[in-house]
Amino acid sequence: MSSSDIFIGEFIGTAVLILLGGGVCAGVTFKRSKAYSAGWVAIALGWGMAVLTGAYISAGVSGAHLNPAVTLGIAIEGGTEWGDVPLYIVAQMAGAMFGAALVWGAYYGQFHAHLTDPEVIGDPASKASGPEGGRAAVGPGPVLGIFSTAPEIRNTVQNLLTEVIATTVLVLAILTQGLNQEGKGLGPLGVLVTAFVVVGIGLSLGGPTGYAINPARDLGPRTVHALLPLPNKGSSDWTYAWIPVAGPLLGGALAGAVYNVAF
Amino acid sequence: MSSSDIFIGEFIGTAVLILLGGGVCAGVTFKRSKAYSAGWVAIALGWGMAVLTGAYISAGVSGAHLNPAVTLGIAIEGGTEWGDVPLYIVAQMAGAMFGAALVWGAYYGQFHAHLTDPEVIGDPASKASGPEGGRAAVGPGPVLGIFSTAPEIRNTVQNLLTEVIATTVLVLAILTQGLNQEGKGLGPLGVLVTAFVVVGIGLSLGGPTGYAINPARDLGPRTVHALLPLPNKGSSDWTYAWIPVAGPLLGGALAGAVYNVAF
Amino acid sequence: MSSSDIFIGEFIGTAVLILLGGGVCAGVTFKRSKAYSAGWVAIALGWGMAVLTGAYISAGVSGAHLNPAVTLGIAIEGGTEWGDVPLYIVAQMAGAMFGAALVWGAYYGQFHAHLTDPEVIGDPASKASGPEGGRAAVGPGPVLGIFSTAPEIRNTVQNLLTEVIATTVLVLAILTQGLNQEGKGLGPLGVLVTAFVVVGIGLSLGGPTGYAINPARDLGPRTVHALLPLPNKGSSDWTYAWIPVAGPLLGGALAGAVYNVAF
Amino acid sequence: MSSSDIFIGEFIGTAVLILLGGGVCAGVTFKRSKAYSAGWVAIALGWGMAVLTGAYISAGVSGAHLNPAVTLGIAIEGGTEWGDVPLYIVAQMAGAMFGAALVWGAYYGQFHAHLTDPEVIGDPASKASGPEGGRAAVGPGPVLGIFSTAPEIRNTVQNLLTEVIATTVLVLAILTQGLNQEGKGLGPLGVLVTAFVVVGIGLSLGGPTGYAINPARDLGPRTVHALLPLPNKGSSDWTYAWIPVAGPLLGGALAGAVYNVAF
Repeated sequence: MSSSDIFIGEFIGTAVLILLGGGVCAGVTFKRSKAYSAGWVAIALGWGMAVLTGAYISAGVSGAHLNPAVTLGIAIEGGTEWGDVPLYIVAQMAGAMFGAALVWGAYYGQFHAHLTDPEVIGDPASKASGPEGGRAAVGPGPVLGIFSTAPEIRNTVQNLLTEVIATTVLVLAILTQGLNQEGKGLGPLGVLVTAFVVVGIGLSLGGPTGYAINPARDLGPRTVHALLPLPNKGSSDWTYAWIPVAGPLLGGALAGAVYNVAF
Repeated sequence: MSSSDIFIGEFIGTAVLILLGGGVCAGVTFKRSKAYSAGWVAIALGWGMAVLTGAYISAGVSGAHLNPAVTLGIAIEGGTEWGDVPLYIVAQMAGAMFGAALVWGAYYGQFHAHLTDPEVIGDPASKASGPEGGRAAVGPGPVLGIFSTAPEIRNTVQNLLTEVIATTVLVLAILTQGLNQEGKGLGPLGVLVTAFVVVGIGLSLGGPTGYAINPARDLGPRTVHALLPLPNKGSSDWTYAWIPVAGPLLGGALAGAVYNVAF
Repeated sequence: MSSSDIFIGEFIGTAVLILLGGGVCAGVTFKRSKAYSAGWVAIALGWGMAVLTGAYISAGVSGAHLNPAVTLGIAIEGGTEWGDVPLYIVAQMAGAMFGAALVWGAYYGQFHAHLTDPEVIGDPASKASGPEGGRAAVGPGPVLGIFSTAPEIRNTVQNLLTEVIATTVLVLAILTQGLNQEGKGLGPLGVLVTAFVVVGIGLSLGGPTGYAINPARDLGPRTVHALLPLPNKGSSDWTYAWIPVAGPLLGGALAGAVYNVAF
Repeated sequence: MSSSDIFIGEFIGTAVLILLGGGVCAGVTFKRSKAYSAGWVAIALGWGMAVLTGAYISAGVSGAHLNPAVTLGIAIEGGTEWGDVPLYIVAQMAGAMFGAALVWGAYYGQFHAHLTDPEVIGDPASKASGPEGGRAAVGPGPVLGIFSTAPEIRNTVQNLLTEVIATTVLVLAILTQGLNQEGKGLGPLGVLVTAFVVVGIGLSLGGPTGYAINPARDLGPRTVHALLPLPNKGSSDWTYAWIPVAGPLLGGALAGAVYNVAF
């Protein structure tokens, strides 16, 4: 696999992953979207199909890692040369940032309408009225949620543990494809199975932290949130940002180790 | 592939696509339907399975383009002769119109009940009562929505951009099947993956415009809406009609170009 | 294929189809069920997975028709000998009846609780109270709906047309498997695709009549409803019963004819 | 297959099955979870994808039984040596217990918040207020539901029958894979089909008892519920515990017998 194949495949694949993954979050969040309030099944299916699409497009080019934790796990298992790891990660980060910008483009009008809606951002004039003193508390949270993850309960140990567990399952499933398929490559059937594994992880382990399970998926779009000229966008929540990077990397490494020892 | 194979495959395949795609919109829209109010997951799954069924039936005959944007992208990539492109598009448009007429047939009683229901079309006698002065504002919108797409926020640049982005993803996924599968043809596995790609595009990028991502899917049924003798059917919204034609064609061309340059 | 293979495969496969298909209707209908009120996506997925399971179990034995309309279409296309058709249909009907009885067994307590619940069957003592004069009008309708289909709007022509259209799509998809797959048999991939075709038909064309698309699926369980000693079970709606038999048979024949002419 | 392969495959596979299966129950149960109240479709998809993931990871190692009822059925059919059965079951039980503990880890904060929430556990101080005298009656039921199953209507015969029927369908589908696939092993396609069979069983037959269909899936996590130091966790409902063990074993044996006689 040439360096340009790795870069192109991972860049395009991860961009598609984040475009569709961030897209379903946007679609469900914004009132003026046909998918508004479609629920957690929509989110989990949407991210799973985002993996399906991104991986399918890039599988024949770069092997469709799309995720530094996957690259790390495959490197530990021996399926990728360590020298290629930085290139994979750079391409994944760049692709994730480009994908997040595309979400902003596709939902441009919705972002503007949402972030200038007094009901969403809190109307100072109405703050004194009502028992809850306006809805300022809601803030721009949902907009950050289109870019990156946030826990329901902030607890460093638990949040990290949830991300480690969920990513270990993901990377273990990807590594065992070598055992299940004739060829080692990720054929269309492997892509399909992986996508539904991600649907499952979202449904089952997404509840506490929003299942980053991918450092590029979280850090790339979070950076784009920080850079975009969005009105009333609020904090990019950088204090939490290390957990969806460290947790998935630990999970990917753990999966690689478990795979090497157990299988 | 003979001309008659192309015409027959694309006509039947696109008719089935629109029958099932328009059908799920009808099923979710009409009160006297068992699928009433089933939500966006139903819509996205319904259109995905519409692609699955139409493509599966026509894959062995015409290659299952079912979409002028797909035909354009494949022609740019080199997989279809340019001379066959007009025939593909004519068959797709004819099939889409036939499929839309079948939706009307399958939901005949529901169309009639809906379009003569005072709550839906607005009862002039009740207009003076109530703070909203009747529900005339609702109008026949949902019925046009069974045939063709409409944006949640009307913004030419954004609406076009959303359709371009979503179609690029679709056609890129279809073009890369050649990389992922042994044979070049769209086997049952390729059909299955493509269907779930469409589920993903619907969930993630359908929110702003309703994801035409196919000029025939929008223009064919819109024409049928204009022709059908439906009472109180309202405008066919022709001012918007060029966007779900131009956007997908641009997206298909962009995907062909990206594919040729990058892969 | 021996006669006993045909009978055993079709009997067991159709029994599983109706057990799971009737089961999801029961699960969604009964208040004291964990699936209560799970909506139309659950129904459509449930029937699709019912086809998946029944067809998967019987594909290697009898070819997994599970449906007289499918048998008819395949016989017209030439894939089944006409002499075997009666045996297929007898086995399908017997299996459908056995499957419906198993639904009654699996939900025994729920049937009893539902059909003795005054809120469901209408309490004569409370009939005079309230503007609607009790809920007697609700009647035992939902219980018949666990066994067989009923239209939302009773209109012989439309109801028949809807069943013809939906069944034509189903049987056409099944017949074209020969074009799409290397071997003619219904392998696991063909079963998977067929199941999702049925999910799509349910979402898109199930709204008006509840998509029998299979004479055995409707007539077998309706007969069981008539025979079972259920309290307050109400009418088995025999006046409608011919439509979900005739419509699917016409659709299966039409699909066979279209396939022979077009492909 | 070596003993260590059997143990490792079944332990890891069943742990993943219960982690994701219990996880979706936790995600839907807890208020401070993003999947809160996502409904029965989420539960059924979640358990199906749990089977997908656990079976995919372990298929190449131990054959992915993950269920004593499956092991029993395969042993009766002749696909597994009787001498290996105890090892399979021990590994499955150990894995199920480990998986249940991982659910507790991943949702640690949610367990604590839930079990100390007066609205959930019933606040003695508020018992006198309100027409329902507090919500003490709700008790910790939902927390046990994350670990093991409970019937909606307690009826020994029906509950047992429902588990027997549902497990017979599951094991019959698994046993017939030998007929449907070229090789006997559970390849990725077989895993995919089995996962959707489980989605179907959940949607269709999960209503009455919560579909244990696997003794290890119920008994292992129930034991963990009994052992975990959870505040206000309530009873582990041992009087019901034998049904989700006996029912699935009977169903697995019945499926093995039906398969040997019929196919």
